[in-house]
Amino acid sequence: MWAALAGGVGGAKLARGLAAITPEVIDELRVIVNTGDDFRLHGLYISPDIDTVVYTLAGIANPETGWGIAGDTANTLEQLRRLGADAWFWLGDRDLATHILRTEWLSNGGKLSEFTEHIARALGIPAAVQVLPMTDAPVATEILTPGGWLAFQDYFVRRRHADEVRDVRFAGADDAAPLPQALATLRQADVVVFCPSNPIVSIGPILALRGVRQAIEHRGASDGSRCCRVAVSPIIGGQALKGPADVMLRGLGHEVSALGVAQLYAGLIDIFVLDETDAALAPQVAALGIRPVVANTIMCAPQDSRALALAIAQAISK
Amino acid sequence: MWAALAGGVGGAKLARGLAAITPEVIDELRVIVNTGDDFRLHGLYISPDIDTVVYTLAGIANPETGWGIAGDTANTLEQLRRLGADAWFWLGDRDLATHILRTEWLSNGGKLSEFTEHIARALGIPAAVQVLPMTDAPVATEILTPGGWLAFQDYFVRRRHADEVRDVRFAGADDAAPLPQALATLRQADVVVFCPSNPIVSIGPILALRGVRQAIEHRGASDGSRCCRVAVSPIIGGQALKGPADVMLRGLGHEVSALGVAQLYAGLIDIFVLDETDAALAPQVAALGIRPVVANTIMCAPQDSRALALAIAQAISK
Repeated sequence: MWAALAGGVGGAKLARGLAAITPEVIDELRVIVNTGDDFRLHGLYISPDIDTVVYTLAGIANPETGWGIAGDTANTLEQLRRLGADAWFWLGDRDLATHILRTEWLSNGGKLSEFTEHIARALGIPAAVQVLPMTDAPVATEILTPGGWLAFQDYFVRRRHADEVRDVRFAGADDAAPLPQALATLRQADVVVFCPSNPIVSIGPILALRGVRQAIEHRGASDGSRCCRVAVSPIIGGQALKGPADVMLRGLGHEVSALGVAQLYAGLIDIFVLDETDAALAPQVAALGIRPVVANTIMCAPQDSRALALAIAQAISK
Repeated sequence: MWAALAGGVGGAKLARGLAAITPEVIDELRVIVNTGDDFRLHGLYISPDIDTVVYTLAGIANPETGWGIAGDTANTLEQLRRLGADAWFWLGDRDLATHILRTEWLSNGGKLSEFTEHIARALGIPAAVQVLPMTDAPVATEILTPGGWLAFQDYFVRRRHADEVRDVRFAGADDAAPLPQALATLRQADVVVFCPSNPIVSIGPILALRGVRQAIEHRGASDGSRCCRVAVSPIIGGQALKGPADVMLRGLGHEVSALGVAQLYAGLIDIFVLDETDAALAPQVAALGIRPVVANTIMCAPQDSRALALAIAQAISK
């Protein structure tokens, strides 16, 4: 069984590749997804990263954006604006069905993890592929900008991640128990994959939950429980393919390169996958005690995701 | 100032006609709308009659159905079904914006009446035309069928009003204060119009609120406060134009004709408008001490509504 840690679009694309070689190469895949971006809008509970992963695994994600549902319309959103709502977050009509049912589910006392399982099955994701929210407890990623602390979506969508990032915190993470199935997955997995998601605000919240970092660190111990832990760099040629990972690394004093990401993950990973563009960084990664692997990490089409997943599987088997 | 009591489609169509002669003939119009049909679906608060009246007055109602928004799509509904929801109530994508914002408004402690005012203005209904929910308190119309009591929308939409009706009750009406502006309107209006809505489940809930029936009865007293009270029959040729009013009248032991409706309203009205089809009933209406007026009451197009409103205004001025 493989575990994958994922945030939004980049993470979802690798998860799609891993799912594509399940069950042929990977017997079972469990994707543990960031929920630090979750928020309420117009009273609806929205889980952007979970939705992106689920829609991508279900093959219905919008291929242009990576998020949302392919071919979706936005008639409700247009009417929300006509009615005077401050509708700064894109909501597709089909996408809204997810938000409406999830909000109802939660208000009836149901758990986010249960709803995620429900929707994954309803959308046809096979049973060998599970999507696990990192926690059922509230955790809110917040960004310190020169203007003060912002809720994540305010920073990311409303203000188009244009602010300088001075600090990041995960409100509630100290008290939030990770999802029991997620923690059990990390303790049992044969392979743990850090998807090419933002290490600060996508992978960071997962690692901030009680016991998660320790569980992954422990899997590197030279005892019988050892597994292979692999990260794929979300930084290529010193830049984030998508989103503000590069700006965040810089703002928080990290090196803005794939090497900077490898340094962040030191102690947590055995293999680090660099894009071909960054092949020259391999020796420096190796110097951290991490085995570098060079591959094409840019996933435009589903076959790119599958090829990267296979490259990871081959690297592990060497 | 004129008051109009209204339920759904039939009421909305006459309200549209009255609004069309405001402010030329009617200085100000206040439409008091049934909320006994309100319910929650997928966690959203839905006010079918208010929406029908507001959309009709705003000129955006679907002309085919009389309810919903013209040209609306149902992509969210389709996806709700795909996700396994029991989506038995038609929800348009644009229409959903109303439900989402209203649900948020109410969950933030706002009142239904405030939201109704907000949406009426946002959709361009002129300030001289007000839409007033009959109450901000919860009232739930329930129907006794051979299978037991049903919530109104279960009876009306889910089971397509196919059940025999043995009794009707308005849960909460005894404790629900009418909207203060609605009661004040009924005490001050120059004219009170009972729109051609179902007398049992559209007008009935309004009359069931504390003090409403008495306020209207009192306006017939021969003192200085006397106003003209007019009802338009929703029964034409012994049948309801739309909906189960005829079945309900029969089930509850009333005469199934315009005369039966006039009998229900005896003591509350001065004028009763019969459709031309029912002109022969005029003497029997007159025998109730109610002045009969014969007019075309079938409102297909907006000009039909306007003509009926003008006919009412002319009858009053005689």
